[in-house]
Amino acid sequence: MTDTVAVTSRRREATRQKLLDAAAQVFAEVGLDAASVEAICDRAGFTRGAFYSNFESKDELFLELAANVARERVAAVRGRVGELERAGAFESTAGDALEIIQQVLDISADDRLGVLLMSEIRIHALRNPALASAYLSQDDEMRESVTQIIDDIGRANVLRFRLPSDEAARLMLTVWEGAAVRSVMAGLDNDEMCRRTNEELARVAQLIIEPPRA
Amino acid sequence: MTDTVAVTSRRREATRQKLLDAAAQVFAEVGLDAASVEAICDRAGFTRGAFYSNFESKDELFLELAANVARERVAAVRGRVGELERAGAFESTAGDALEIIQQVLDISADDRLGVLLMSEIRIHALRNPALASAYLSQDDEMRESVTQIIDDIGRANVLRFRLPSDEAARLMLTVWEGAAVRSVMAGLDNDEMCRRTNEELARVAQLIIEPPRA
Repeated sequence: MTDTVAVTSRRREATRQKLLDAAAQVFAEVGLDAASVEAICDRAGFTRGAFYSNFESKDELFLELAANVARERVAAVRGRVGELERAGAFESTAGDALEIIQQVLDISADDRLGVLLMSEIRIHALRNPALASAYLSQDDEMRESVTQIIDDIGRANVLRFRLPSDEAARLMLTVWEGAAVRSVMAGLDNDEMCRRTNEELARVAQLIIEPPRA
Repeated sequence: MTDTVAVTSRRREATRQKLLDAAAQVFAEVGLDAASVEAICDRAGFTRGAFYSNFESKDELFLELAANVARERVAAVRGRVGELERAGAFESTAGDALEIIQQVLDISADDRLGVLLMSEIRIHALRNPALASAYLSQDDEMRESVTQIIDDIGRANVLRFRLPSDEAARLMLTVWEGAAVRSVMAGLDNDEMCRRTNEELARVAQLIIEPPRA
């Protein structure tokens, strides 16, 4: 594309990102209901026109924000799986499913705000059919990514699974969310939250993984 | 106790129940945030004094309402397990885990409003430490009841489990909620919602149940 177009699209992307960052700050301070388009625009230093040329609605912006949180988590897990493969960890720990899972989940970084955001978006989606279908397609996207991660691990040829990888992915994501929400309710700090979440995920992973043949 | 005390306590219980029923109606019409103590009292035909002599807050009332929804579901499942035991279903279907689970879950009655209520209470609990600890103890109560159901089925001596029954209970409850929420988002009717929820639960139950020895 021409330089002008490139500049315009970079500028547009920067505006979009500034609005997302401002929304995250406002959400952290006042929660989803009180985080108005006005408050977000004031924080970002943009007009409502700039907002609505980037997002159809406040819900759409927060849905994207929640999706980014989820994508970062999955990307971190995927990166970790890559490292472990290159290090030959799957071969060297063959059969020790729990150790593999713990290594894979070593980096997951849940945080209280991310959990709150996803839970609040979920409530809005439960009430709003348009948002619900957007939420469900992001849910499918997450499930797809986790399915690929599980397939990659399976292809490392150490593990066999007792569920199709897409059903295993759904189960892992469901357990992940449930454990994270309970951790936030229990007032755990982020480290303890990750520890508990990974513990529950490892337990489910052990159910999913076929015990190695004797 | 004396008749007077008995009458007073029956009247008190009736008031409490009328407030809960009114709250359920108001919630169904306007959602949790708009369901004010005033609106609930108007619907029930009681004063705010009567409300606050029965509940500390609107959140406390809705938490009890959500707990009642959950208790009804668990009680229905427990009743079904009893029927099946008396009918010798566990013996006659020995080994066929899926069939047993499907019979057990045959009656589960999720509905859109119950799912909405529990999700909204959860959000309030995520923001409110006092409500959070109440929510978590109700969560433990549910988990306890489901653990007992799983132990009862185990004692029927047909099935062995690959998880301690309390961990299996937590997993079943987490999957139940996740599946119900996705069903509501997908706009499914109650029958289809129960079908999908039970399908996911049966799949997880199959993971939890030891395959019968050859």
